[in-house]
Amino acid sequence: MKKREDSIVGFIGLGLMGGALAMGLRKQGPRKIWGYDIDPTVIKMAIDRKVIDEGAFDSEGLKKMLPQCDLLFICLSPKDALVFLTTYMEHFKTGAVITDITGVKEVIINNLGNRLRNDIDYIPGHPMAGSEKEGFGNADDSIFKNRNYILTPLPTNQPENIELIKEIVTDLGFNHITETTCEIHDEKIAFTSQLCHVIAAALVDCEDDLSITDFEGGSFGDLTRIAMINAAMWTELFMCNRKNLLNNIEKFESSLEEMKRMIEAEESAELIQRLTAVREKRIIMGEIREAKNLKKE
Amino acid sequence: MKKREDSIVGFIGLGLMGGALAMGLRKQGPRKIWGYDIDPTVIKMAIDRKVIDEGAFDSEGLKKMLPQCDLLFICLSPKDALVFLTTYMEHFKTGAVITDITGVKEVIINNLGNRLRNDIDYIPGHPMAGSEKEGFGNADDSIFKNRNYILTPLPTNQPENIELIKEIVTDLGFNHITETTCEIHDEKIAFTSQLCHVIAAALVDCEDDLSITDFEGGSFGDLTRIAMINAAMWTELFMCNRKNLLNNIEKFESSLEEMKRMIEAEESAELIQRLTAVREKRIIMGEIREAKNLKKE
Repeated sequence: MKKREDSIVGFIGLGLMGGALAMGLRKQGPRKIWGYDIDPTVIKMAIDRKVIDEGAFDSEGLKKMLPQCDLLFICLSPKDALVFLTTYMEHFKTGAVITDITGVKEVIINNLGNRLRNDIDYIPGHPMAGSEKEGFGNADDSIFKNRNYILTPLPTNQPENIELIKEIVTDLGFNHITETTCEIHDEKIAFTSQLCHVIAAALVDCEDDLSITDFEGGSFGDLTRIAMINAAMWTELFMCNRKNLLNNIEKFESSLEEMKRMIEAEESAELIQRLTAVREKRIIMGEIREAKNLKKE
Repeated sequence: MKKREDSIVGFIGLGLMGGALAMGLRKQGPRKIWGYDIDPTVIKMAIDRKVIDEGAFDSEGLKKMLPQCDLLFICLSPKDALVFLTTYMEHFKTGAVITDITGVKEVIINNLGNRLRNDIDYIPGHPMAGSEKEGFGNADDSIFKNRNYILTPLPTNQPENIELIKEIVTDLGFNHITETTCEIHDEKIAFTSQLCHVIAAALVDCEDDLSITDFEGGSFGDLTRIAMINAAMWTELFMCNRKNLLNNIEKFESSLEEMKRMIEAEESAELIQRLTAVREKRIIMGEIREAKNLKKE
């Protein structure tokens, strides 16, 4: 793999995440940045703002762009990323390092099968950052500061290419990188991300009083900010990780049911004990996270 | 009721909330501030920091304090507030305005019955602010800025006394005051506050991996911050508002169940429609709240 300053970097999809990643990469001084988006006005905006040097918005443009890119970030939804990878497989540059940012990982790997060329290095990734806002116009690379990045390398990945991705994302602001398998990623993410979004959505869904915020002290706002969801994208993530998500919804439902039962039966002593354990567990979870932040600052 | 500058104000309980309210009241220049707390070291700290002028930490002290107070804030848990009101009813100053800050309201009113003296004016209240921290040492009156205050006046309350409380809490930083009944308060609060705390606790409860934050992008942190709960206080709140809370848990469970069913049945189109409606509802809820903030600034 070439050094970053000698590399041509490409972004497939210049939405909120693709746009922010390209903005961050710009500061790392690659030789050239290419951007692809189906919306030509986004390409124009990205060139005007000097986020990318050259753009493509159709298949013809892509076929010019892809053979030049030493490093490629696929910033699409899982299904679109899969379609893109299979459709343009023959156009990637020999030796290219390709990564993606999809929120679920198994669906891509399992469906790519043996179509992955062995002269390119595809390293699946997942930056744990985002916003309830959407699109290139809202892109801002400060969202990466102190966030987690997850890499789910394949057995065939070159160590030096994994190292390169790690250096790039560290310089983007991410402060904790976890390497794991696609399988473990999807299990864990079903809890931390997808279950949380389902809960937030259900909480808004079940309340009809639009002025309910008259009675709120912060909790409702905190729990439901992520309910301002991109419905199509999240439905796709939920469906792609269906089994893990259903397991996690059930896991949560049974804890909720236990607490409901204690309240119903007025088992105060038991509930105090349970809530005390919850408090301690959550404090430890926070401290483990905090220690990782401190280490990297 | 006397003017604020001529009044002697008392605080019963100098915890996080009582302490913060006393700090805020100090800036409003009352003639004198009294504080009661069972912990003498808290009283000493509050006097040293000039938050209160004189303190009491036992029944004898209270019997000296209460007959002097024109305005009294009871900053205790619901059950302790009820015990305090009934135990010291005969010691309140004639004409005193008394308010409280408990998170549930019916339990106090329903149990006080006809023991409430008719020469004092008890106006139940609920400041919708707080912190996962506890105690006077963490008290800080900046937590009131732009928060909601709920008053649940009784039919016997004097309009000028309700007005006085509203002026005081507005000057404390609260920017939206809702007047409602104890019954409606308890119904609404079961959703915005107690249900949210039960959900946060269940979400931490159901996860065993203490390093789960390696996989988090902000959602899990936002949803579970309030799981660092004062177990005894919240158990009391849950039990005092048991029926409303159980109704709200069930309301939430059925929305969650609906979404789970759609994911299970892979009903993508239906789920996208539902999540789109959720997004729109949450945006409107936020805008209604925002409009109230702007009005008061």
